[in-house]
Amino acid sequence: MYDESRFIERLKRLIPRSLQGAIPIGDDTAILNVRSKSLLFTTDVIVEGVDFRLGKGGARPHQIGHKALAVNLSDIAAMGGEPLAFVCAMGMPKHFPAAQAEGVAKGMIRLARQFGLSWVGGDLSRADRLFVSIALLGKARYPILRQGAKPEEAIYVTGRLGGSLAGRHLNFIPRIEEARWLASHFRPGAAIDISDGFIQDLEHLLKASRVGAKISLDSIPISSAAWKSSVRRRQKALEAALTDGEDFELLFTYPKKRGRILEQKWRRRFPNVSLTQVGEIVHPHPGEVEWRQGGRSLRRLWFRKKGFKHF
Amino acid sequence: MYDESRFIERLKRLIPRSLQGAIPIGDDTAILNVRSKSLLFTTDVIVEGVDFRLGKGGARPHQIGHKALAVNLSDIAAMGGEPLAFVCAMGMPKHFPAAQAEGVAKGMIRLARQFGLSWVGGDLSRADRLFVSIALLGKARYPILRQGAKPEEAIYVTGRLGGSLAGRHLNFIPRIEEARWLASHFRPGAAIDISDGFIQDLEHLLKASRVGAKISLDSIPISSAAWKSSVRRRQKALEAALTDGEDFELLFTYPKKRGRILEQKWRRRFPNVSLTQVGEIVHPHPGEVEWRQGGRSLRRLWFRKKGFKHF
Repeated sequence: MYDESRFIERLKRLIPRSLQGAIPIGDDTAILNVRSKSLLFTTDVIVEGVDFRLGKGGARPHQIGHKALAVNLSDIAAMGGEPLAFVCAMGMPKHFPAAQAEGVAKGMIRLARQFGLSWVGGDLSRADRLFVSIALLGKARYPILRQGAKPEEAIYVTGRLGGSLAGRHLNFIPRIEEARWLASHFRPGAAIDISDGFIQDLEHLLKASRVGAKISLDSIPISSAAWKSSVRRRQKALEAALTDGEDFELLFTYPKKRGRILEQKWRRRFPNVSLTQVGEIVHPHPGEVEWRQGGRSLRRLWFRKKGFKHF
Repeated sequence: MYDESRFIERLKRLIPRSLQGAIPIGDDTAILNVRSKSLLFTTDVIVEGVDFRLGKGGARPHQIGHKALAVNLSDIAAMGGEPLAFVCAMGMPKHFPAAQAEGVAKGMIRLARQFGLSWVGGDLSRADRLFVSIALLGKARYPILRQGAKPEEAIYVTGRLGGSLAGRHLNFIPRIEEARWLASHFRPGAAIDISDGFIQDLEHLLKASRVGAKISLDSIPISSAAWKSSVRRRQKALEAALTDGEDFELLFTYPKKRGRILEQKWRRRFPNVSLTQVGEIVHPHPGEVEWRQGGRSLRRLWFRKKGFKHF
């Protein structure tokens, strides 16, 4: 029999006091001292068999904890925000080894420490399959929404896209730093993190902003994992970059005429993270995209899959 | 195949705009305008097969939504707080009927409306068994902690205990109003909500406050459901009242010498909710309880079970 209260005691001891809230974990709720016109609040859950696999060849416990927190941080990044504190509800199979459960916690603690955010509470329940549900608070001085993209803005993506399931989805570092730098120095028109795949998330941004886009497929930055999984066939790799889920890169818009300066300063500040203009916002047809390749407009894409779906 | 984005669209339409946050649901995070020295933050998850059953004789969808939110509200009540906003991550089996999923949402919306709190975001994933994980924000002017109970304080419980699984756990109204009234007019020394059972939660409060207690078993208010389930045998019913989980009543302490006034004002303010003094805080032996019955001290209780455990 799993000793719940002993496990919670152990967990509490794992979390450095400095990472806990105003009162130690264990009361009915956490208490935070917050003053913000833009307090950000988000939740994301990851589930065994859907978002990660257990066992041989699957995710290691600390990677599960890392991913659970990182996907939430990615949402705060998409708003240009700074993470503050999180709570975590976990469902665990009856005989899940305590050492593995602690591994999950350690993965969260390490990432929390990296971004200076607090773990202030949680809940533990039994479940057939492991799940980790996190709710995260952050704050933003100038929150960047999905709505707000305007014609005459360029569309940018950070990093390289596709093939995340080969490993990156378990290890990625959310673009918190990059997004905060962008929000405070450049104020993007709109932003979103790429979690459902480039095409789907671009559509979300366009619909929220009620604009269309022209995308140059020749510019899409393809990850080496996407190249590998496509045996280096370009159209196949491009399809992966456009549709694979869980890139957790940023997609944002910024006025074209000041794009050059943004790109220069970006390269100086983040020499190891690419920033690529992949297209531009256009007036009509909210949510619609003109796909261009080799200098011409495509009537349609050569594949039907749009991106990741849970059902 | 379940159409996730259409379901989310439908859900968004179910939630009155007035119950959503500063921006409509659907961006990467919610945005809230918050100024509080004591922002309360908590999470609780309920899982099918553990916290409710589905199907014939089991919970109806709106009861599942109700319970998921109510258990979180009960934690805010235990702090004497006012609920503000929540996010909800849900795991749903692949072929879970859309109408039932909406039923769950409606249960949450109805309760949220009753307490004037906002539903500001969520996440949906596939899972073998239904689970509903909620994180809730609230605020308190004078938060009541588990620590803070002192000798010379009486121990009170609201309502009647035991037998919640017969139905009440799916329908209970969290003691938000009562707790806010207590916090603003009387300032209890310490408080906790009874979710793991009276004995366990009393222990939590005593340990956090580093005090002991004397409890009069003759005073424990036994619910009619506990009487019924015990075929009206007194010791059996008492055992249920002491150990059954999910009462979601308040357990709190308040100076004995002002207890009479508290009790009078309570009866006038909440004529339909009983308030019972069940014992008092004593000095030594943190966490230890002297159980008294029929005018004498018991060497030990006549049963071993302490309360609800998940594992």
